[in-house]
Amino acid sequence: MSKNETEEIDANVLFSEFKEHSVADFFKKNRQMLGLYGKQRTLTTIIHELVTNSLDACEEAGILPEIEVQVSEIAKEHYEIAVKDNGPGIPENKVGNALGKLLAGTKFHRLVQTRGQQGIGVSGIILFSQITTGKPSKVITGTSKEKTISLEISIDSKTNSPKMTNKQVLEKKHRGTIIKSKFKEIIYKKGQNSVDEYLRRSAIANPHASIKFQDPFGEVVEYTRTVKKLPQIPKEVKPHPRGVSVDEMLSFARHSESRKVSSYLAQAYDRFGSKAIENVAKLVHFDINKDPKKITWEEAEDIVKAIKQTKFIAPNTENLVPIGQNHIEKPLKSIVDPEFVFVTTRKPAVYQGGYAFQVEVGVAYGGGAGRLMFIDKKNEEEGPKEIRFSEIIRYANKAPLLFDAGGCAITKTVQSVDWKRYGVSNFDNSPITVFVNVVSVHIPYTSAGKTAIAEEEEIVNDIKLALMDVSRKVGGFIIQKKREAERKEKRRVFSKYVPEIVAALSRSTGKSKELLEKNLMTMVLEKLKLDDEENGFEEPIKEEPTKEEPTKEKKE
Amino acid sequence: MSKNETEEIDANVLFSEFKEHSVADFFKKNRQMLGLYGKQRTLTTIIHELVTNSLDACEEAGILPEIEVQVSEIAKEHYEIAVKDNGPGIPENKVGNALGKLLAGTKFHRLVQTRGQQGIGVSGIILFSQITTGKPSKVITGTSKEKTISLEISIDSKTNSPKMTNKQVLEKKHRGTIIKSKFKEIIYKKGQNSVDEYLRRSAIANPHASIKFQDPFGEVVEYTRTVKKLPQIPKEVKPHPRGVSVDEMLSFARHSESRKVSSYLAQAYDRFGSKAIENVAKLVHFDINKDPKKITWEEAEDIVKAIKQTKFIAPNTENLVPIGQNHIEKPLKSIVDPEFVFVTTRKPAVYQGGYAFQVEVGVAYGGGAGRLMFIDKKNEEEGPKEIRFSEIIRYANKAPLLFDAGGCAITKTVQSVDWKRYGVSNFDNSPITVFVNVVSVHIPYTSAGKTAIAEEEEIVNDIKLALMDVSRKVGGFIIQKKREAERKEKRRVFSKYVPEIVAALSRSTGKSKELLEKNLMTMVLEKLKLDDEENGFEEPIKEEPTKEEPTKEKKE
Repeated sequence: MSKNETEEIDANVLFSEFKEHSVADFFKKNRQMLGLYGKQRTLTTIIHELVTNSLDACEEAGILPEIEVQVSEIAKEHYEIAVKDNGPGIPENKVGNALGKLLAGTKFHRLVQTRGQQGIGVSGIILFSQITTGKPSKVITGTSKEKTISLEISIDSKTNSPKMTNKQVLEKKHRGTIIKSKFKEIIYKKGQNSVDEYLRRSAIANPHASIKFQDPFGEVVEYTRTVKKLPQIPKEVKPHPRGVSVDEMLSFARHSESRKVSSYLAQAYDRFGSKAIENVAKLVHFDINKDPKKITWEEAEDIVKAIKQTKFIAPNTENLVPIGQNHIEKPLKSIVDPEFVFVTTRKPAVYQGGYAFQVEVGVAYGGGAGRLMFIDKKNEEEGPKEIRFSEIIRYANKAPLLFDAGGCAITKTVQSVDWKRYGVSNFDNSPITVFVNVVSVHIPYTSAGKTAIAEEEEIVNDIKLALMDVSRKVGGFIIQKKREAERKEKRRVFSKYVPEIVAALSRSTGKSKELLEKNLMTMVLEKLKLDDEENGFEEPIKEEPTKEEPTKEKKE
Repeated sequence: MSKNETEEIDANVLFSEFKEHSVADFFKKNRQMLGLYGKQRTLTTIIHELVTNSLDACEEAGILPEIEVQVSEIAKEHYEIAVKDNGPGIPENKVGNALGKLLAGTKFHRLVQTRGQQGIGVSGIILFSQITTGKPSKVITGTSKEKTISLEISIDSKTNSPKMTNKQVLEKKHRGTIIKSKFKEIIYKKGQNSVDEYLRRSAIANPHASIKFQDPFGEVVEYTRTVKKLPQIPKEVKPHPRGVSVDEMLSFARHSESRKVSSYLAQAYDRFGSKAIENVAKLVHFDINKDPKKITWEEAEDIVKAIKQTKFIAPNTENLVPIGQNHIEKPLKSIVDPEFVFVTTRKPAVYQGGYAFQVEVGVAYGGGAGRLMFIDKKNEEEGPKEIRFSEIIRYANKAPLLFDAGGCAITKTVQSVDWKRYGVSNFDNSPITVFVNVVSVHIPYTSAGKTAIAEEEEIVNDIKLALMDVSRKVGGFIIQKKREAERKEKRRVFSKYVPEIVAALSRSTGKSKELLEKNLMTMVLEKLKLDDEENGFEEPIKEEPTKEEPTKEKKE
């Protein structure tokens, strides 16, 4: 026994401090886990939670979203934030728990693609408002059938329950929800991680939404919708058998109302047809007519194994609503303003746990693509030139992800692509915007702050395949562009010396300069065309010969 | 009204799905937030949670830790993990809630430096075991006063409560706790993110612990303690007034048993002496003899403002126990085996929220420092050479952080240092190990998986200052090393040509070669010494002149 033995403290003394804690207290103490740290980041995160909540509410209710965001400065590092939507509103008897209780909501237990999925977002924001200012948040909400009410709400963090005061019925009806909260320890700044950038990216991925933003200086930016139709509303669908874990297979079975395992499978899962059930029945080592409530872990495991050896139709896609090729191209063109854009959407797939997901990727190149780093004024011949670096804009269920890029499956996958193969010789320093949107019935976030997607194998693979698909097209275009530039340069060089050659030929042959020049130009253009064909470049773009005046420079 | 209006769904229909969820269900669905994703990463995370829990238990009880970790392969991607400690054990009536309930424990509500702080770690692991294998975890635990019991435990995730079965009293007494769980979807691999590396780093930062690890191949690695004394046990201390938020000022006041605000301040906070109270009394706009239970948010805010203008003694350091300079140097030298090591420990400080923290930094350079990337065999003259890249080893409360380096305040700060200023011309490709340990009564993790520290301003600043301090010393050493290398090279070059010069001189002067050589060498060494002195390098290390045989190469 060591000498330390004498000073030892008994377990019963140590455990006298044992306590349980509410989830509200947990996140109050660990606000960093909600992304609420860093003064600018915190402000952007607040806007993110409120805006995604509004967009979800509108879309679920089948309403074209109209969102108004206002950030007003009260004092130094002290702001009021108001977000107003035209959504369905919150029924009076649900307001408290919807906004004033963490881990409560309509989204967590359903397999449906929404931006929020945890039941923490807005209630976390209301909690943060009260712990930095001591003030409750003001809520105005009205549904289509009920009165419009106004109230103040805060959260008792000890019990994770709402406290509501000053409830009033408003005479002026508003269908939708307005949340107004005050915050300290935050700061409004423009730039890469700003509210402005967050909303710009939201507008890119949500062309059906109108978003209006008034900053603390009173300046208003408005993104009006470029798509007038609401995207299809994602439907809740049953889990696809592929990827369902043994634990889920068992716990769904125990809660099933079916009398036989066979009917449980048909009823509880998407795409579990009679053929698949027949096949599973053959493969498992127990009678599939058994009561599902009585299956063991081993039997559930047996079913999951059998599923892996059974063919299923691809998942029902009604629960996944990607943005869609056109609706990515349009805003990327109008907001980013690049030379060209290519977009691809993968087929829906399933990752570990049976969660359906789908990846769409857009690459915009040249022009206004990438991030403007500085303007190079040294290049006298071509005038000032914008120097642009690459940017990766990430989305999860159409909500922009601005932070923790380094830990995100999207960034890591984009960086793992061998861009040189696609004509992008230096990815970091290229004018390129890579747009990636992952939609899923359950995004595997690495943290409750919902800033980065975990590297689930299937998701990483699909992002990679989508990137490769788009990059091939981009590469073709970049190569075409390079060829054009080369051709232009050749043409410029030829035409520069044509007058001299023509003059010399004319002197020695006595033919007219005009005729000689015409013939020579035809020859030159014919030669350039041949070069292109040799390079497998089929249809050179027709262009007027350059109209540059021949200069007097000498050959070297 | 748009056409969509007709398809709108009413709020009451939408909210009919409204539900509350348990924190266990939350983390079951969001296992990524606990760091439980990626097959290798998941295994390392499991070990991390179990080992830190054991180390905490031993230290809190004043016991020198002896930890045994065993990973056994059951089948492909299917393992059993056992962690055994010699800690205080868990009292029988507390086992259920301590291991089978999330957000319960002795640590969350106390300001004391422990590795765990959330009450999620081990219960999250037990939950993950059961959802991947359907099996409960086996627990054997005994305290010094009670019997040793064995039982099986799992978690009812719907209610976040423990289910215990097969409880037995064991005849063979064991003081401490053994947890044995089975897992699927994990994989054991060696390498950078492995259990091996995790335990190696644990041993570096915990020289007072003995850690024994048996891998699935039966190989055993044992880190025996290099320090025989238990570090001081961190004491729970009251919060320091600096950094206490208004919300805390108010809620502590409302729970205070004091009758006056003045006595509440003296009683509830560390270092709130009578002088400080007098000063605060002068600055606030209300009577400080008021009942603390009756103060308003505005008054609490007033106190916090006054605190900012009041001088306080630095925080009590009894709640912070850094590893200490010697105890970092020792294992860094023995385990990393570098050419030299410098270590610095900052004074305790406080970050946002009033949490005390302290930073210690060690830099090991040359020799076995850094990560071995490959062995360069091309260099024929000097023989094969190890090519080593820099590595940053991060710790929070002495527990290694292996993942999400990119999002961690430590990595970001190390990378922000201008290493060139300190003689490290290319940080990434240098043989350098940077060791950073942040201890705090509450580490601001970015996620419940506890893999990265959030960039809280005060912590970032202190890491930076510590790095600069150590780097200056490192820089001095690197410059000295470069000078030595230069001197060696000069000497080599001189001595290479000395025989030729001596021969020529001997021929022309007729003096003996021996005399000429002796004089020439003395001159050369004198010259080298002068060079050094001119460069402000006071004491050149004495070395034997190189004994290389002069070669026959010609001067160019």
